[in-house]
Amino acid sequence: MSSKISPKQFSVRDPNYVERVRDAFARQGFLRHVDARVEEVAPGRCVIAADFRSELAQQNGFFHGGLLGTIADAAGAGAAATLIEPHRWLLTAEYKVNFLSPARAKRLKAVGEVARAGRTLSVSQVHLYGVDAAGDEQLCALAIVTLMILEREAPSLEKN
Amino acid sequence: MSSKISPKQFSVRDPNYVERVRDAFARQGFLRHVDARVEEVAPGRCVIAADFRSELAQQNGFFHGGLLGTIADAAGAGAAATLIEPHRWLLTAEYKVNFLSPARAKRLKAVGEVARAGRTLSVSQVHLYGVDAAGDEQLCALAIVTLMILEREAPSLEKN
Amino acid sequence: MSSKISPKQFSVRDPNYVERVRDAFARQGFLRHVDARVEEVAPGRCVIAADFRSELAQQNGFFHGGLLGTIADAAGAGAAATLIEPHRWLLTAEYKVNFLSPARAKRLKAVGEVARAGRTLSVSQVHLYGVDAAGDEQLCALAIVTLMILEREAPSLEKN
Amino acid sequence: MSSKISPKQFSVRDPNYVERVRDAFARQGFLRHVDARVEEVAPGRCVIAADFRSELAQQNGFFHGGLLGTIADAAGAGAAATLIEPHRWLLTAEYKVNFLSPARAKRLKAVGEVARAGRTLSVSQVHLYGVDAAGDEQLCALAIVTLMILEREAPSLEKN
Repeated sequence: MSSKISPKQFSVRDPNYVERVRDAFARQGFLRHVDARVEEVAPGRCVIAADFRSELAQQNGFFHGGLLGTIADAAGAGAAATLIEPHRWLLTAEYKVNFLSPARAKRLKAVGEVARAGRTLSVSQVHLYGVDAAGDEQLCALAIVTLMILEREAPSLEKN
Repeated sequence: MSSKISPKQFSVRDPNYVERVRDAFARQGFLRHVDARVEEVAPGRCVIAADFRSELAQQNGFFHGGLLGTIADAAGAGAAATLIEPHRWLLTAEYKVNFLSPARAKRLKAVGEVARAGRTLSVSQVHLYGVDAAGDEQLCALAIVTLMILEREAPSLEKN
Repeated sequence: MSSKISPKQFSVRDPNYVERVRDAFARQGFLRHVDARVEEVAPGRCVIAADFRSELAQQNGFFHGGLLGTIADAAGAGAAATLIEPHRWLLTAEYKVNFLSPARAKRLKAVGEVARAGRTLSVSQVHLYGVDAAGDEQLCALAIVTLMILEREAPSLEKN
Repeated sequence: MSSKISPKQFSVRDPNYVERVRDAFARQGFLRHVDARVEEVAPGRCVIAADFRSELAQQNGFFHGGLLGTIADAAGAGAAATLIEPHRWLLTAEYKVNFLSPARAKRLKAVGEVARAGRTLSVSQVHLYGVDAAGDEQLCALAIVTLMILEREAPSLEKN
């Protein structure tokens, strides 16, 4: 499959975007609870990974679909966060995951890439891969994540 | 909002459907890891809940969106599982969650209801509520879950 | 299925909301081209309908899925538009449709209801029904529509 | 953006797949009504296009979102149809579209590519582009389409 999103030069508006994404990630108890980690942060791009263990599985020994959604959301939000201004903040508005093949692998990797960087909404596309012991990757899920950009870290979504 | 899905009589094809849903749930390491529990199982319906704790939160103290997706998937799949034949099995094909208000609550509740019970595909609608200490509920997310019905518990989705 | 979205009192902020929804609808060439019509407008609610004819069908004589999506989008946007301020404007950010049963009917009806009325984002839930000659309705699709609220009718989405 | 779906060799199971996709397309009244045309058919891939005219627009002179969804569905289904056996048939189970930028262009192009070719379910990813007079393309929407594979052309989805 050839390149789909034109390799436009994403404008970074916060020089500390890497630190910022890693910090936002570290502050989320649920992402720590599922042992997700940030593997890569670049303009318009964020890769999240998790190693297999039974606490992350469903009944057949695959990574659980809820975990795939969680990692996809984190990768999509992380990618969008690299492009916002220093004082702004993100909340996920919606996400959607399609499962393509069972995620039975040593490691799960979610690659989030920005498809639209807007002023009030951003959209990321996420490809999820199962990675085996040899490092071979198999696409196991596709996701789209829509993010709302807030003026600042809001204690409540209610008024936005 | 008035009733939307006609209260058709769902046909239960497995007399042990309650036990079956609870058993499938118990075998999923990830659902135990997030302390989700089955609150109710009825024909075409399944309610899943989780109590708030920091391991389930994002950075603002709300339930994490990934957890909401996980619970929604479980409620939607559980609802669909009440209506399948004893020898069949379900796998989630896709799900989508829209976040409506911040899930800052003592407890999270996902109510899954079957909108379509097919032979190869079922579709569930899920409403997620934040429940406060007084028991008041606020709708915080909507989800749709599509389930694939397999001939039997398959070790692999690949050939289906 | 019991009531899901609490019957909260939606606050209408534009006394001319009915006229406004009908006017926005009338200005959309594509909605006229598919012969869709507004059947009902109320606070937080909009019903759109279309009569069957072969120009709206797929190869089996059902209403085409693309038409169902179009009508769902229009009903969801119309419902959200009833609750915004006079000077604001809506654009659909995303929508998702699940097909439950073939829409082989005399008439198609999409009932859009607001699930969240925000300042920058609104979310509507849509139920689509096939209506036969006797007036009996069958649920044939479910949709969720996310709308972005703009400060004014913008000539371009690009900067928002 | 680099290649995301590994360029696996898709196995064509029906030597007449091109004719088949074009024929299925031609039989759909709604696709003719919106003047959509098949631009390209290849294993695992289908491109659909439509030229701008006011009957396909919303109120700001952009292509209507419902049309984008329609074209996305057709491109996703067409791509999946290139890989199924001669006696099988497809029905869209669900689709989801995210709008990234206003589709104000001379021509709209939807590129559908198969992400999963299964026995009962296929999933296609669709990128939609606005094409201007000079032939320059801008990504304006992303979609995911889930298709159900039927044993044969069914008069009804109800029993599947």
